[in-house]
Amino acid sequence: MATYTKRVHYKNRKRQINVGARPGSIIIPDDAVKPQIVIYSFNETDLQTSKGTDMKAITQQIKKCKDHTHWIKINGLGDAALIEDIGTFLDINQLVLEDIVNTHQRPKFDEYDGYVFGTSRVIYFNKENELVNCQFSGIVKDNIIISFEESHLDYFEAVTTRLKAGKGIIRVGGPGYIFYALTDTILDNYFVLLSQIGDMIDTTEDKLYQRPDKSIMFDAQQLKRTLIIIRRSCWPERDKINDMIRSESDLISKDTKLYLRDAYDHCIQAMDMVESYKEVTSSIIDLYLSMVSNRMNEIMKVLTIISVIFIPLTFIAGVYGMNFSREDAHGHLIPDNMPELYMHHAYIYALLLMFFIGAGLVAVFWKKGWFNKL
Amino acid sequence: MATYTKRVHYKNRKRQINVGARPGSIIIPDDAVKPQIVIYSFNETDLQTSKGTDMKAITQQIKKCKDHTHWIKINGLGDAALIEDIGTFLDINQLVLEDIVNTHQRPKFDEYDGYVFGTSRVIYFNKENELVNCQFSGIVKDNIIISFEESHLDYFEAVTTRLKAGKGIIRVGGPGYIFYALTDTILDNYFVLLSQIGDMIDTTEDKLYQRPDKSIMFDAQQLKRTLIIIRRSCWPERDKINDMIRSESDLISKDTKLYLRDAYDHCIQAMDMVESYKEVTSSIIDLYLSMVSNRMNEIMKVLTIISVIFIPLTFIAGVYGMNFSREDAHGHLIPDNMPELYMHHAYIYALLLMFFIGAGLVAVFWKKGWFNKL
Amino acid sequence: MATYTKRVHYKNRKRQINVGARPGSIIIPDDAVKPQIVIYSFNETDLQTSKGTDMKAITQQIKKCKDHTHWIKINGLGDAALIEDIGTFLDINQLVLEDIVNTHQRPKFDEYDGYVFGTSRVIYFNKENELVNCQFSGIVKDNIIISFEESHLDYFEAVTTRLKAGKGIIRVGGPGYIFYALTDTILDNYFVLLSQIGDMIDTTEDKLYQRPDKSIMFDAQQLKRTLIIIRRSCWPERDKINDMIRSESDLISKDTKLYLRDAYDHCIQAMDMVESYKEVTSSIIDLYLSMVSNRMNEIMKVLTIISVIFIPLTFIAGVYGMNFSREDAHGHLIPDNMPELYMHHAYIYALLLMFFIGAGLVAVFWKKGWFNKL
Amino acid sequence: MATYTKRVHYKNRKRQINVGARPGSIIIPDDAVKPQIVIYSFNETDLQTSKGTDMKAITQQIKKCKDHTHWIKINGLGDAALIEDIGTFLDINQLVLEDIVNTHQRPKFDEYDGYVFGTSRVIYFNKENELVNCQFSGIVKDNIIISFEESHLDYFEAVTTRLKAGKGIIRVGGPGYIFYALTDTILDNYFVLLSQIGDMIDTTEDKLYQRPDKSIMFDAQQLKRTLIIIRRSCWPERDKINDMIRSESDLISKDTKLYLRDAYDHCIQAMDMVESYKEVTSSIIDLYLSMVSNRMNEIMKVLTIISVIFIPLTFIAGVYGMNFSREDAHGHLIPDNMPELYMHHAYIYALLLMFFIGAGLVAVFWKKGWFNKL
Amino acid sequence: MATYTKRVHYKNRKRQINVGARPGSIIIPDDAVKPQIVIYSFNETDLQTSKGTDMKAITQQIKKCKDHTHWIKINGLGDAALIEDIGTFLDINQLVLEDIVNTHQRPKFDEYDGYVFGTSRVIYFNKENELVNCQFSGIVKDNIIISFEESHLDYFEAVTTRLKAGKGIIRVGGPGYIFYALTDTILDNYFVLLSQIGDMIDTTEDKLYQRPDKSIMFDAQQLKRTLIIIRRSCWPERDKINDMIRSESDLISKDTKLYLRDAYDHCIQAMDMVESYKEVTSSIIDLYLSMVSNRMNEIMKVLTIISVIFIPLTFIAGVYGMNFSREDAHGHLIPDNMPELYMHHAYIYALLLMFFIGAGLVAVFWKKGWFNKL
Repeated sequence: MATYTKRVHYKNRKRQINVGARPGSIIIPDDAVKPQIVIYSFNETDLQTSKGTDMKAITQQIKKCKDHTHWIKINGLGDAALIEDIGTFLDINQLVLEDIVNTHQRPKFDEYDGYVFGTSRVIYFNKENELVNCQFSGIVKDNIIISFEESHLDYFEAVTTRLKAGKGIIRVGGPGYIFYALTDTILDNYFVLLSQIGDMIDTTEDKLYQRPDKSIMFDAQQLKRTLIIIRRSCWPERDKINDMIRSESDLISKDTKLYLRDAYDHCIQAMDMVESYKEVTSSIIDLYLSMVSNRMNEIMKVLTIISVIFIPLTFIAGVYGMNFSREDAHGHLIPDNMPELYMHHAYIYALLLMFFIGAGLVAVFWKKGWFNKL
Repeated sequence: MATYTKRVHYKNRKRQINVGARPGSIIIPDDAVKPQIVIYSFNETDLQTSKGTDMKAITQQIKKCKDHTHWIKINGLGDAALIEDIGTFLDINQLVLEDIVNTHQRPKFDEYDGYVFGTSRVIYFNKENELVNCQFSGIVKDNIIISFEESHLDYFEAVTTRLKAGKGIIRVGGPGYIFYALTDTILDNYFVLLSQIGDMIDTTEDKLYQRPDKSIMFDAQQLKRTLIIIRRSCWPERDKINDMIRSESDLISKDTKLYLRDAYDHCIQAMDMVESYKEVTSSIIDLYLSMVSNRMNEIMKVLTIISVIFIPLTFIAGVYGMNFSREDAHGHLIPDNMPELYMHHAYIYALLLMFFIGAGLVAVFWKKGWFNKL
Repeated sequence: MATYTKRVHYKNRKRQINVGARPGSIIIPDDAVKPQIVIYSFNETDLQTSKGTDMKAITQQIKKCKDHTHWIKINGLGDAALIEDIGTFLDINQLVLEDIVNTHQRPKFDEYDGYVFGTSRVIYFNKENELVNCQFSGIVKDNIIISFEESHLDYFEAVTTRLKAGKGIIRVGGPGYIFYALTDTILDNYFVLLSQIGDMIDTTEDKLYQRPDKSIMFDAQQLKRTLIIIRRSCWPERDKINDMIRSESDLISKDTKLYLRDAYDHCIQAMDMVESYKEVTSSIIDLYLSMVSNRMNEIMKVLTIISVIFIPLTFIAGVYGMNFSREDAHGHLIPDNMPELYMHHAYIYALLLMFFIGAGLVAVFWKKGWFNKL
Repeated sequence: MATYTKRVHYKNRKRQINVGARPGSIIIPDDAVKPQIVIYSFNETDLQTSKGTDMKAITQQIKKCKDHTHWIKINGLGDAALIEDIGTFLDINQLVLEDIVNTHQRPKFDEYDGYVFGTSRVIYFNKENELVNCQFSGIVKDNIIISFEESHLDYFEAVTTRLKAGKGIIRVGGPGYIFYALTDTILDNYFVLLSQIGDMIDTTEDKLYQRPDKSIMFDAQQLKRTLIIIRRSCWPERDKINDMIRSESDLISKDTKLYLRDAYDHCIQAMDMVESYKEVTSSIIDLYLSMVSNRMNEIMKVLTIISVIFIPLTFIAGVYGMNFSREDAHGHLIPDNMPELYMHHAYIYALLLMFFIGAGLVAVFWKKGWFNKL
Repeated sequence: MATYTKRVHYKNRKRQINVGARPGSIIIPDDAVKPQIVIYSFNETDLQTSKGTDMKAITQQIKKCKDHTHWIKINGLGDAALIEDIGTFLDINQLVLEDIVNTHQRPKFDEYDGYVFGTSRVIYFNKENELVNCQFSGIVKDNIIISFEESHLDYFEAVTTRLKAGKGIIRVGGPGYIFYALTDTILDNYFVLLSQIGDMIDTTEDKLYQRPDKSIMFDAQQLKRTLIIIRRSCWPERDKINDMIRSESDLISKDTKLYLRDAYDHCIQAMDMVESYKEVTSSIIDLYLSMVSNRMNEIMKVLTIISVIFIPLTFIAGVYGMNFSREDAHGHLIPDNMPELYMHHAYIYALLLMFFIGAGLVAVFWKKGWFNKL
């Protein structure tokens, strides 16, 4: 497995800015993928699925199954005409269409005449372990829900599986319930993401205690940034779910609102985890910095103590290495010039002197507690 | 007693994530313990107790004592069938049942048609001195309160004792009062926990002043984390109690609400203590870091001063250790090459020179105040 | 006078925790002092005072002066029977009585049927210069106010003096006005306390500028903690006064509310001062740490520069102290081995070389500005 | 391209303060540029443009096209008479006129009798890469919108282009829609600005990882300040747009409010980006400081280790450089004075001793892990 | 000009605390100056001015000009009798009078029966460059406004000048407008003060970039404290103005409220500037600390590198300074004792060895990038 440091690579498309552009302009980014459309038409007993890439597939299916609920699942936003056609077909405001293709929206829930519109952030680590932060949006009108995803990824597999199985209220809850189920899946994936991040934090913490090195600082900073990205999605997501709960539109049924209250709790739990993880990450950084500083201090202290012990000894050796002569320029003896050098046992005495000075310094430092770890 | 650093070991079960699972799914974690059921049926004069492990024990007892208040105390959540049966018997929403077994709920209080549901966090140090953070939940309906605990621990012993003694309003307050009593016991245990943490803080602070070492940093960080866990439970607990006070359900009587106001005050006091302890812990860290830095500075300063005093002395010794000869290649005297070496008392003068330079440096540093402790 | 570091000694009784105890239990702490009772019965023209230690003294006095306002001043909470008797006599809720003896309440104001109850924190430095943080509580019912203090200290002397003097509205304002007057005295004492803390801050700041040492860090941290204790009392005190102003009870007259608005302003001013002092304390810590670091840097810099200047000089001395011989093993002259040693004026040249290297290094460092204070 | 450090140069005019001046005084700053007026008069099918520099140009055009919508675009505020004339012509409050020329307003939206007034901050990097922070204000009354800009810059080119093209609702939306379009253009330019800042952050971050130097600190601090300036405009801009949405004036039509909701979302997105960028900038500073400290520590550690290894070796060399003589003053042999010097292979032994001491120290340090990077 | 460090000297009178004093006591501080009274009586066409020091001057003037608006301007609070007399004359609550002489009020606006009362903080640098923070208070009743200032300073000269000139609505706006005009002048002076502080910040910043020294830290801390003082006045001032705008009293006319909205905007702008300046000050401190640390690191690094290069060289010189003899005790040649010393060119080789070791170390350090500035 790749190490963490490389793992959090942010895969973000640059926001396209068109200064002064007419509001509601549908400008498709260059790297948007071509849409794939799957239409699920279902009622309590029947489920019909059809695929396509353009508006015709949609209209045909809707005509065919008049009394069914339709979930039009669009993966890929790279076709301006399709978006426009859907807008015309369902009579959707231009600003909503713009929000669908301009994939930098914060999670929000807006009510319009006859339909509701919501967006969420879909965040996950892809197979290359890059952090992907893309947009999900959905429109609910009459018996139709249209979901827009940025990629061909089968992100909502769990929901389609449940839909095919046909258990629970998923077939009878109407398009509002499908919208809730998609939102709930996104929230569930936040927990998956947070659990991955939790593992990364554990790994980083283990590294901190076992073999700390400077990558910890980078890892912790990256974890922090990832958590900030999630938090920036969680907070407005909570508001969005709250708006849905308080919505007076018929499209969100009373039963669905009960489930949304549950999703609301999940959202708050996710925010709680994000905050906890942020605090753990901060404490990892604090501990790491404290460890670095402690270790550095310890090294410097021991080394400096060694230096200081030898300094006076080397000085004494230097003194007795001086060449003060015993004879003056006329060859006369100068008895007071370094008489120690000519004494019996002088060398032994000098070595003893050095030893006692060294031992004395060690004793003083010991008594001052400078050898204790701090 | 084990030292503190080892004491705060977090015993948390990993959250199980089932992406896109049907909301209301009852998925029992693998390590959940099998439930033990005790049913207390009581009125002002009578108390009947029965035990069991399945639904039958509950229904029999309820049938037997029709006019009693029933407290069904379930310890252990490891039996999905039991939870489902209780749900069916009392007509409880699936989402509530899911919240009971998914033991990562924040404290909350929800009102439903005919019954109320609440959860709290039960936090304590177990016998191995690990911090356990598990969930209590309770349902109150008609004359029945069902309490769900994660373990077989006799956590609410104080309440059962009072119930058996039969004093006070515990026998006549109805199931809502029992629910309050359980919540109040949890709050009381927060104070026990905070008092244990207070002792740990005292221990850490004593260590700081008496024999500071680097374990202080770890201890303080762990204390901080423990306090954060408690705070994360206290804040929503306060909201929960407030919701109970403002509840319009008949299940929470006016008298019980008076007691809940008291519990509300306790909850705020606990939050106050948590905040105080957090600030004390932070100031311990600040003081420790300042002490480390001070001590390191002091050591470095003294040692560096010693070095600097000897440096010029050693240099002088080195100068007079140079071998500049008195004779050139031809054997002629060079009178100006190091004449000091051949002077009377030169050695004494050299030693005196060294002494005065050393003393001079000491004097300069002294005057500059470099020997003062800062 | 004792130095400040020793001054802030926290004299706090440990909170007693009785897990699961019946709410409203009156459990007297072991170190509670026996109560002394003084009863002031007064109207505009008359003031009668009686003393006692039990309920009888109270009932007698109240019987005797039926139309007077009574202030029953109880100093000391060490008599459970007295508290219970008062509770029975005035028909006070058990929870209120519990709050009176459990002296860890936050300031609060509660209205009950026919009476009101309030608590405040009494904070002061006692004669041993310890910070005492104890509780005042009061009950106002009909024409009676009962005040409860933890100690025998004559804390409200100013109020009793005014009462005896009989000026102002104190004799005619009713028990609610007395309650206000007591609260106001507590607030006034906060200003006394803050002024003492202001003096301590001035002392610490003077020390910082004149003879900084490491006690500053401890002092500042202790000041911070003391300020946090006061803030924790001020905030809920403000809410309490606000609750009193908005109270609809007849016991707090409209005139008294005008005075309470004044007390409210005082409370906010106290909070303002606490915040200011906290910021000053923080800036003292910041400045101290910066000064320590500056001074340490300066010392290290000067000393290191000295070392570095001497290092090349000592090296040169070392080079000319080498014993490379002028003769090889066969006694033949080796003219290229250290010919400098045998040159005329070589010693002078060597000394000059050393001098110029040293001066050159000084010049380079000077030019780089390393001698400037930073 | 100039480096970033030079780039953020703040081009702010000093605020002129006239203490106690009559409110509503129109005091033109000395460096205000002379106004250029362009008047666009348009309806769904027709667009007439005229230019001028004084009031006459305005009145003529308005007289000429009675049923058109008029956009009077004033670039430059350096003509007090013109401002006064416009005030008289449209009956505008003096305080509004003062706000127009005193170009330090926060974004705001005020409603008056019959007209509305709004200001925004126009922030951009000019051609000299200086950050310009100037003011836009607009008055909407009847069928007229007057926009005031500080400079002759063609900042709203995109809007005039759309107006000339005549597509969309720009020609039929009334003056309120024009006001929205101008506000929206300002917001779009915030994204342009933020994208430039994003590039600067990327550059700084690249520098951090590839060739960190101390300019990073300056760059990051300047980025922070720039972001603070933008945030100070974004927050009140959001409130302003909200005020416009909730306005009950007919001048802001219901359709325009729909677009304003869109602008509101954009404003929140800009604030989100500002916050993200601030956090990234902070983490750059943290990482840089950590890198500097790490690198310094590493250098100091390696160098100190080298010193310490050589210290005992140099001491030994010093010992054997001492001149303890083999003969005393009388020429007698002193056999115990440094006999090592006269032993066979003594030199080799000494070198080996030094080698083993050095190697031993290296081994000890290695084992202690001091060579590991931390 | 005095340097800034000395400039911010806080000239604050100590708060006088009278524990338990009767609320409404008028206690004049010892250093309060004797009042000077100027009475301006004016209507649209007439302005009469009279001076005095006691109540008689006021009553005479009011009697004389019955239909005029009166502005009684009192400079100095050192006369308790005057304050009492005014209180009696206008029937003002004792608490208001206490607030006037107890000059530590936060800005506030209170409505009473028939009159309104407001206070503001007057903050400025006096001629000695001390920061003065004193109190302005004003009472508006019927056609009278009484303003109270602490000193004889002609602070409101601009307003009296406008009053004498008689232009604008100042003569016809009533006493409420005068009260607004005084408040507005105080706000204008906040901008003057902030502009002085802005200059100080510029000076400090210039010093930071050109000749940083440790006074920067002190200056920045003092600037911060000054800004905190201003902020503490601005926030409640804003609330006060808001209270005035929402006041239902007839004394604040609808026209005046329009001007107050303008003042409200100014107050928020001042708060904005304070926040900006605080952030700039913080970033100055951060940059300074970073610069100090950078410079110290640079010095230490260069010096340490020099040391390390010479350490092995000095060691080699030491080795060849050892006195291992060529002859043993019996005068026999020991050929293996330091044969290098007797080799041809040995000295040159030794010097070359030293040179290459030194050059090698420099090369290694260079390659490791230790000479780069970080």
